[in-house]
Amino acid sequence: MRSYRKELWFNVPSRRAFINITSQVQQCLGESGIKEGFVLANAMHITASVFINDDESGLHNDYDKWLEKLAPHEPVKQYRHNDTGEDNADAHLKRQVMGREVVVAVTEGRLDFGPWEQIFYGEFDGGRRKRVLIKIIGE
Amino acid sequence: MRSYRKELWFNVPSRRAFINITSQVQQCLGESGIKEGFVLANAMHITASVFINDDESGLHNDYDKWLEKLAPHEPVKQYRHNDTGEDNADAHLKRQVMGREVVVAVTEGRLDFGPWEQIFYGEFDGGRRKRVLIKIIGE
Amino acid sequence: MRSYRKELWFNVPSRRAFINITSQVQQCLGESGIKEGFVLANAMHITASVFINDDESGLHNDYDKWLEKLAPHEPVKQYRHNDTGEDNADAHLKRQVMGREVVVAVTEGRLDFGPWEQIFYGEFDGGRRKRVLIKIIGE
Repeated sequence: MRSYRKELWFNVPSRRAFINITSQVQQCLGESGIKEGFVLANAMHITASVFINDDESGLHNDYDKWLEKLAPHEPVKQYRHNDTGEDNADAHLKRQVMGREVVVAVTEGRLDFGPWEQIFYGEFDGGRRKRVLIKIIGE
Repeated sequence: MRSYRKELWFNVPSRRAFINITSQVQQCLGESGIKEGFVLANAMHITASVFINDDESGLHNDYDKWLEKLAPHEPVKQYRHNDTGEDNADAHLKRQVMGREVVVAVTEGRLDFGPWEQIFYGEFDGGRRKRVLIKIIGE
Repeated sequence: MRSYRKELWFNVPSRRAFINITSQVQQCLGESGIKEGFVLANAMHITASVFINDDESGLHNDYDKWLEKLAPHEPVKQYRHNDTGEDNADAHLKRQVMGREVVVAVTEGRLDFGPWEQIFYGEFDGGRRKRVLIKIIGE
């Protein structure tokens, strides 16, 4: 069994954003030399997500509006987590809806994807350097 | 390390449905000959889910009603994704709540499940052929 | 490839609770002797979750309040699942938001975590013995 590890770093200037990281994950897979196995891609921060969906700006707008409705940022005082001096409780909630991680099959050296699958980093509390872990195991 | 891959195809006539795929995944595991490892089962489409829960029709009714409340199909014009000519933005949202994939442990050649765990394909935008990927790695 | 398996048992007296299981998972990893691979930690019950987030009591209070808003326990008769004699339909819904499982990378014999990542058992229908499966594969 072989394994591969890399961190992808992001610094999103806005509070929230969705960033397509598919090509970076593909590059990691190429570097790994692994032909059959699993890729794990996970946010290393608990106010961010890695998820798979469509690279369509209208949909990303819908996600952002929907997550704000399910877990609004304001008023920040509605959350007990923010009593600690933080203002990011909503980001911890949004991240649970969108998920921490994805596991993707590797087949014949490629990400084994359906026609529209793309991997995104979902930032819900930006303005600082944060990272995603790519870990690949297989042969 | 061994690996196994199979696609399961579905054509759900209704817009939404939950289909128990546990026996099909067990059959894949048997074909793989793998005794210890992980099974990945993921929707290859971004308006569908694979998830684990109870095979109880009342609960499935509850899920459907709840997901419609969290992310209603109508009015379709409330979603910017639907400006592209689609009417399935809600399906992209519902799928995030229910998840893209499950990873199941394989122990002594069996799905290592608790008493009520069953694997489901969750369709949120049916009426066409769609598929689930089963990938198994281990020994 | 090596593999390791252990069940962690819980008996939460209250209906809902979040329990930090990180040190127990680390102990499993140590026992396994695996240095590079993946840890799968999943609830074996369909009214409970395993998830990764912050060990902060204010946030756990926010999660509990938020999940009750998204999928209220009362009135129990609003759910068709509860027509079966159960009163835990809400727990099946809450668990989907928080997730069944996490997959964590193992690097140099350690859980490969960001600065604040901690693993939790999320109980949504307590008052009885329930368990989490830890399965580790790698080398």
